[in-house]
Amino acid sequence: MHSVDLSKAFRLLNHGPTTLITSAHTSQRNIMAAAWVCALDFNPAKVTVVIDSKTYTRELMEAEGTFAINLPCVQQIEIVKQVGSISGRDLPGTDKFVDYGIDTFAAQAISAPLVKGCVGWLECKIIPEPHNQNTYDLFIAEVVAAHADERVFSEGRWHFEGQDDLRTIHHIAGGVFFATGQPC
Amino acid sequence: MHSVDLSKAFRLLNHGPTTLITSAHTSQRNIMAAAWVCALDFNPAKVTVVIDSKTYTRELMEAEGTFAINLPCVQQIEIVKQVGSISGRDLPGTDKFVDYGIDTFAAQAISAPLVKGCVGWLECKIIPEPHNQNTYDLFIAEVVAAHADERVFSEGRWHFEGQDDLRTIHHIAGGVFFATGQPC
Repeated sequence: MHSVDLSKAFRLLNHGPTTLITSAHTSQRNIMAAAWVCALDFNPAKVTVVIDSKTYTRELMEAEGTFAINLPCVQQIEIVKQVGSISGRDLPGTDKFVDYGIDTFAAQAISAPLVKGCVGWLECKIIPEPHNQNTYDLFIAEVVAAHADERVFSEGRWHFEGQDDLRTIHHIAGGVFFATGQPC
Repeated sequence: MHSVDLSKAFRLLNHGPTTLITSAHTSQRNIMAAAWVCALDFNPAKVTVVIDSKTYTRELMEAEGTFAINLPCVQQIEIVKQVGSISGRDLPGTDKFVDYGIDTFAAQAISAPLVKGCVGWLECKIIPEPHNQNTYDLFIAEVVAAHADERVFSEGRWHFEGQDDLRTIHHIAGGVFFATGQPC
């Protein structure tokens, strides 16, 4: 894992991968799958994410003002399907990380845990835009730290040759994903 | 080409493909490449697009209130690179479509031309949000019609098997693209 220059953070998302959103507040934490995540600006790096108002992840990220975008890879498909299929609200007394055996590590600048085994991570601070949040479930955030697995992302670009298990994934529909493909 | 039910239009964008944005106003039209395009809602279908304030495409789409998202495929890589490298403002007297030999056909509900040879098209009507537009170059739009090439998109999902030339593309950086890959 290495740090990604914030001016290059948009390149982690440019190709439209599916993500795992993590958030934490006080002693609570949660994780969900999200495909509607997009770069918004280069410098300072900003992103948009769409998070349904009913989700527990959103409750925690709004309370804390921060969240993380984790970029899962092919070998994590089952985790992505699992955390996308049940709400953290329905797991009283424990959390999805424990239930699904998802290992994490500490972020650099925020409270949300980062998911081990992912290939990219963006630590985000919400820029409050209540109208967007309330009307569209749309959040705008500044990226305050970014990291990537140097086996597949270095010098500001992805390179998956020889690393098929580490390819990022793209959600099509109904739990079906495509791996990021060949250069063209 | 066949119509896509608007409640399934988000699935055209779910996997994060690079797009061509077209717009038209009075006798003027333009086209540009854009990677920062994302689904925002299911029904009514909405999208977000980020369009720099200096672009000619934006001037036309703001004047008209509509634009189209075209989804190019592998065999159109050169077009995507070309229209992404020069502004329509620098082509007085003609336009990018003529200069680059880009064939189009009429949209169903809006004035913007649709690009032949693409594999998906979303016709969009801007929902005016001046704060987002002026502060973030961020546009929210409702999808008012959607279409796809049935060879690779039918019954609400993509299927590229045996159609490598028709795979959608994902921009990584600096004019390098990945094709949408294998199911996983």
